[in-house]
Amino acid sequence: MRTRQVIVKELPKGSLSEDHFEMSEAELPTVQDGEVLVRTILMSIDAANRAWMQGATYREAILAGDAMHTGSLCEVMESKSTRLAVGDIVFAESVWADHSVISARKAAKMPRVPQLSHLMSVFGIAGKTAFHGLISVGKPVPGETVVVSAAAGSVGVYVGQIAKAMGCRVVGIAGGAQKGAWLVDELGFDACVDYRDPAWSKALKAACPEGIDIYFDNVGGSVLETVLFRMNERGRIVCCGAVSQYDSTRPSGPRNLPGMIVVKRLRMEGFIVMDFAADDAKAVRAMQNWVASGAIKVQEDIVEGLENAPAALIGLLAGDNRGKRMVRVGADA
Amino acid sequence: MRTRQVIVKELPKGSLSEDHFEMSEAELPTVQDGEVLVRTILMSIDAANRAWMQGATYREAILAGDAMHTGSLCEVMESKSTRLAVGDIVFAESVWADHSVISARKAAKMPRVPQLSHLMSVFGIAGKTAFHGLISVGKPVPGETVVVSAAAGSVGVYVGQIAKAMGCRVVGIAGGAQKGAWLVDELGFDACVDYRDPAWSKALKAACPEGIDIYFDNVGGSVLETVLFRMNERGRIVCCGAVSQYDSTRPSGPRNLPGMIVVKRLRMEGFIVMDFAADDAKAVRAMQNWVASGAIKVQEDIVEGLENAPAALIGLLAGDNRGKRMVRVGADA
Repeated sequence: MRTRQVIVKELPKGSLSEDHFEMSEAELPTVQDGEVLVRTILMSIDAANRAWMQGATYREAILAGDAMHTGSLCEVMESKSTRLAVGDIVFAESVWADHSVISARKAAKMPRVPQLSHLMSVFGIAGKTAFHGLISVGKPVPGETVVVSAAAGSVGVYVGQIAKAMGCRVVGIAGGAQKGAWLVDELGFDACVDYRDPAWSKALKAACPEGIDIYFDNVGGSVLETVLFRMNERGRIVCCGAVSQYDSTRPSGPRNLPGMIVVKRLRMEGFIVMDFAADDAKAVRAMQNWVASGAIKVQEDIVEGLENAPAALIGLLAGDNRGKRMVRVGADA
Repeated sequence: MRTRQVIVKELPKGSLSEDHFEMSEAELPTVQDGEVLVRTILMSIDAANRAWMQGATYREAILAGDAMHTGSLCEVMESKSTRLAVGDIVFAESVWADHSVISARKAAKMPRVPQLSHLMSVFGIAGKTAFHGLISVGKPVPGETVVVSAAAGSVGVYVGQIAKAMGCRVVGIAGGAQKGAWLVDELGFDACVDYRDPAWSKALKAACPEGIDIYFDNVGGSVLETVLFRMNERGRIVCCGAVSQYDSTRPSGPRNLPGMIVVKRLRMEGFIVMDFAADDAKAVRAMQNWVASGAIKVQEDIVEGLENAPAALIGLLAGDNRGKRMVRVGADA
């Protein structure tokens, strides 16, 4: 069987562009014992896709000629595994393609839910990342001030809404006044500052009159540097990503690190969502309750068509998305 | 009554030199209610002295014309406080001077011990900083690899010896082969690497065959950047100081922050010794036991004469000292 797939033609040396990708066709291997053939329904688009092109992280690096890796929701079409049956919906580590043959060990069976995309957003990695990072790493106390960068992003929208639901003051950092207005008016953030405004550091100070207790950092770089100056003593920085650094050949560290950590006795801590897998059921239950009560609104940003995946990723790195970005490759089962 | 004192004539814009200081004489004010007149015995010389010239930290900044601030061991000569009596030995927040008039609230009565200087080193801030930072922030487990920078410094010598006493592998980072040999031969470090050697990153890798679990960072800057690449997943970085940045007009942050924190799920945490004051008695008891058993050797570096305080500080910033540096201003009581 043949499939369309998007390969990384060349690894980017600087900014990522569509020229680094190529749509190609490939003959799929025959399904072996322990493997399944899957049909892609939705692919998750993440800043991490770009990081994987920089070298090995918590997963292996992507090399020129490889199909782009992705987490995806798929339907099983053929199975030579006792763990999965035809028709199962799985969350799979696969590639940007219409169909893939993968090890059944790389596919987790998902429940049937009214809207599949929710498994990728509020009840998926985005929502769990927000929940575990904010609660288990940040340890918020009601009344504290929580700042989140990439606030309109897949994780940021939930970090802010969870923090509000817990009784914190919430300030977002996002690019552009429109996004900021949307976060305040639609999602209930107390304020939002636009890091593209040269005077944004003053705006941040004004928006956080009692300083910052928790900073949920998705971007690193100069935004992190600016926020560090406003942190309260004993503040916590939840390190979730460094998207400002992924698409750059000249990464730069905040010049006030580790100085500010010493002077203000801060804690900066990184995590990945799998570290807290034992608490996933708690996270999903909490999110279900908040969605049901209206305290949390589900935010998704779905781009149609496999061929648009490169543009969807490039746009995400530029901050185009509002909420969890996905690419729809096939119809829901 | 008149006293000699060392004032900061001019704040340094770049590297600190003796020209920034001036010996002067001043008439002391009359002792008021709640105050004491003290005679300085030993003054603590710390990288923090330099940091205080950069601006407000956890204490107020030093300005041009001020006498240099210091923590010192003093004898009370005259008292208008009910808390302190003539002849008491106190640890005081005072200035670089033969005599000072200070608020009794800024002086803590110390026990009489056979050797006063031990109150400034192993049983003082240096020893407590090493103990609390390593144990309460770093949380070492026997068998783990602990790396400490400024390893021959006032805190570093105790961090390494405590970690060894707890069953960890200990690797020091220090400037110069002689210091390294001293740390290994005299203090029992497993290895020491010389950050002045251009190939030191390879030497660090070789000295830590199982990676690094805890890095006790006294220096920040490029040393921190290099160590970050060798940290194990879930490693801890105890942020105690950033001496590489204090004497610089162009601070630079490690370029791999916060990226490494995210990818390796590290925890970086700052502290100051006062945060753990409730555990000070535990720390002193542990250090007394280790000194008595010979597991920990006391390391002190005493410079004679108030007039030599500027050179003592400048030398400390250049890494001249071995163990806790102090300036002796007057004889023990």
